[in-house]
Amino acid sequence: MAKGTGTERGGVDKGTVELGADLVSGVSLPAAVIHEAPLAHNLAWMQRFTEVHGARLAPHGKTTMTPALFKRQLEAGAWGITLATAPQCRAAFSHGVRRLLMANQLVGQANMAMVADLIAAGADFYCVVDGVDNVRQLGRFFAERNQRLAVLIELGVPGGRCGCRSQAAVQTLAEAVAAEPALVLAGLEGYEGVVHGEDPAAAVRDYAQRLVETVLALESAGRFDVAEPIITASGSAWYDLIAEAFQAASLQDRFVPVLRPGCYVVHDHGLYREAQRDVMRRRPDLQRGLEPALEVFAQVQSLPEPGLAIIALGKRDIGHDQLPVVLRRYREGGDPGEMLSVVGWQVTKLMDQHTFVHLPGDVDDIAVGDIVAFGASHPCLTFDKWRQLLLVDEALKVKDSLATCF
Amino acid sequence: MAKGTGTERGGVDKGTVELGADLVSGVSLPAAVIHEAPLAHNLAWMQRFTEVHGARLAPHGKTTMTPALFKRQLEAGAWGITLATAPQCRAAFSHGVRRLLMANQLVGQANMAMVADLIAAGADFYCVVDGVDNVRQLGRFFAERNQRLAVLIELGVPGGRCGCRSQAAVQTLAEAVAAEPALVLAGLEGYEGVVHGEDPAAAVRDYAQRLVETVLALESAGRFDVAEPIITASGSAWYDLIAEAFQAASLQDRFVPVLRPGCYVVHDHGLYREAQRDVMRRRPDLQRGLEPALEVFAQVQSLPEPGLAIIALGKRDIGHDQLPVVLRRYREGGDPGEMLSVVGWQVTKLMDQHTFVHLPGDVDDIAVGDIVAFGASHPCLTFDKWRQLLLVDEALKVKDSLATCF
Repeated sequence: MAKGTGTERGGVDKGTVELGADLVSGVSLPAAVIHEAPLAHNLAWMQRFTEVHGARLAPHGKTTMTPALFKRQLEAGAWGITLATAPQCRAAFSHGVRRLLMANQLVGQANMAMVADLIAAGADFYCVVDGVDNVRQLGRFFAERNQRLAVLIELGVPGGRCGCRSQAAVQTLAEAVAAEPALVLAGLEGYEGVVHGEDPAAAVRDYAQRLVETVLALESAGRFDVAEPIITASGSAWYDLIAEAFQAASLQDRFVPVLRPGCYVVHDHGLYREAQRDVMRRRPDLQRGLEPALEVFAQVQSLPEPGLAIIALGKRDIGHDQLPVVLRRYREGGDPGEMLSVVGWQVTKLMDQHTFVHLPGDVDDIAVGDIVAFGASHPCLTFDKWRQLLLVDEALKVKDSLATCF
Repeated sequence: MAKGTGTERGGVDKGTVELGADLVSGVSLPAAVIHEAPLAHNLAWMQRFTEVHGARLAPHGKTTMTPALFKRQLEAGAWGITLATAPQCRAAFSHGVRRLLMANQLVGQANMAMVADLIAAGADFYCVVDGVDNVRQLGRFFAERNQRLAVLIELGVPGGRCGCRSQAAVQTLAEAVAAEPALVLAGLEGYEGVVHGEDPAAAVRDYAQRLVETVLALESAGRFDVAEPIITASGSAWYDLIAEAFQAASLQDRFVPVLRPGCYVVHDHGLYREAQRDVMRRRPDLQRGLEPALEVFAQVQSLPEPGLAIIALGKRDIGHDQLPVVLRRYREGGDPGEMLSVVGWQVTKLMDQHTFVHLPGDVDDIAVGDIVAFGASHPCLTFDKWRQLLLVDEALKVKDSLATCF
């Protein structure tokens, strides 16, 4: 209940940013920043990638939990929005998202009640199931409400995260779903991001193939309760392999193939940049890949001894699975087009509210108040630090303030 | 600008929690939970500790950014609230905190403007300075506004974080402050949490002694612009050594000694539990130390293979400097007084929205939906994951929903 807030939260803080201000003059820092040009590029790029492969896009919304970005994704052609929890679904629905794919088991009476309310209000809602106990719990709950709940069976891998460990378990679970009049079996779901192997790409291809075989087996057995069942997988690292497997099996003719990358929308400067390089290596036909759009701007706070700058940026402001990387530097109040050197600058430590940067020996043009742009790995864990992010143009002018609804 | 939101944010989500519900029935999980009894104990314990040592308490508010807790801290006798950034100060002030100790350099025109507005609105505001450049920036900014800004000089250590590296640098900085008519030198500040040494306690004692000598030297040189200058240090790990050093020098006779622990208020199940054990070893006279009050409740989401439980809890919900620890388990809809075994349960991995728990071989009473209470290290990085936390009584009944203002 304490997560996934509704419409009331959106925009209440907007008044405190002067739209049109530029980031190097007059904006309180640190601030999380989204660059419009790469954002627009990424939105169009992934939509086109998906369509070219005969699939639909349901971007994972948990990455950003930013309704203005959900809107952009839907306007670009997305089929729906994927989410991770019932409160996230409630938040997205309250901001106008009608088709919700909850790529997780729905657990807990209060969360079930939340989803029941969304369905009653008109949401086109899907969640996943991977165990008979949960199927029975859901069957009972929604039967008591005289509602029907659409579920996708999750196929996992041994040693993985959630999901049935075998095709046999999937078939058993399909029988359990069929025994619950309140449940509608609407497809098959998987997540290749937790599949491991000595050759990770080969392991993902194998898993994608098993998804294809499993959905076809369920179809042959007449298990689906809908005309066009959903077949869905893919995070932001291996989406190409999933799309290729679905397309190679021509699933788009009888199923609704759905890809669910989330991080693509703003990309990153770490984990996903590496993953995207691999995609581009595997797929030389793809033009101009994803581009990082998310940065955090912060100021030099203290220059207490030679070779050390302390930045007013911390774990409260930026994802810290990996240390942030220094991208650019500006003088406060200067020209946003004029960048100062950050050659040799190295983040060495991140505390709650402070970042330690090691400076090379010959830096002498640095000043307290200098503005440094940082990139991070894994955008999800930067978004959730902020109630608002600033959308800026190429001149670093603030065009909009985007509210999050974590 | 995107941080430190004002009053409007408080409580808008309260309507979605049914006060009086209990955590094992009908509350959407995961939820961050504060237990009232240990909270009340910690509030009183640290207040008394501070008073017994002749000091004042300005709890670090960045830990919780929870106005309802600021109120409890002030009602318990706190002298003021410490904060880390200008937006945090603005948020605290908007929730009724009048005396604000910003234990950081104030950097950036927009942040200075924010503080100028707080001072104009009646805030009793202090920040720290550690360099001549920043002193000149502040002097110019506040002179132009015809305002006076009270500053404390920060004494750091070589190889540490912010702060002057020597007494000579402190004296030079005091001269620079004296040269700025808009600045008022109101005290000396330090933070022993970034002091390191082979014998950490000895290094902290040395540093505390240097703080004492430095504040006395500034006093002798007539550097202070106020009758009772502030001398302040201490996080939540070494507060006893700081308090003892200040008391041993009888600083309370001519100065205002201020301690600034933050994490004490809800304590933790990691770093600070260890630190508190050390405090209690050093101080056998102290009775019944701090007690952990903050937990995150979450549900078993999937039992996909023997020995593995996947919990609907992730990095989005709980601090992850260390892996969370499993504390207790309840059956959903059961008696909150009846706990199920978690012997041998071990968290092995934390993802954005999922926790992996390794189960011992003989667990057979576990069910999807079971409710597990988790503890974390370092409370700051759990609070900032939530817009609301639930205050519960000993029967796990929800007494209140506390809004955060990150």
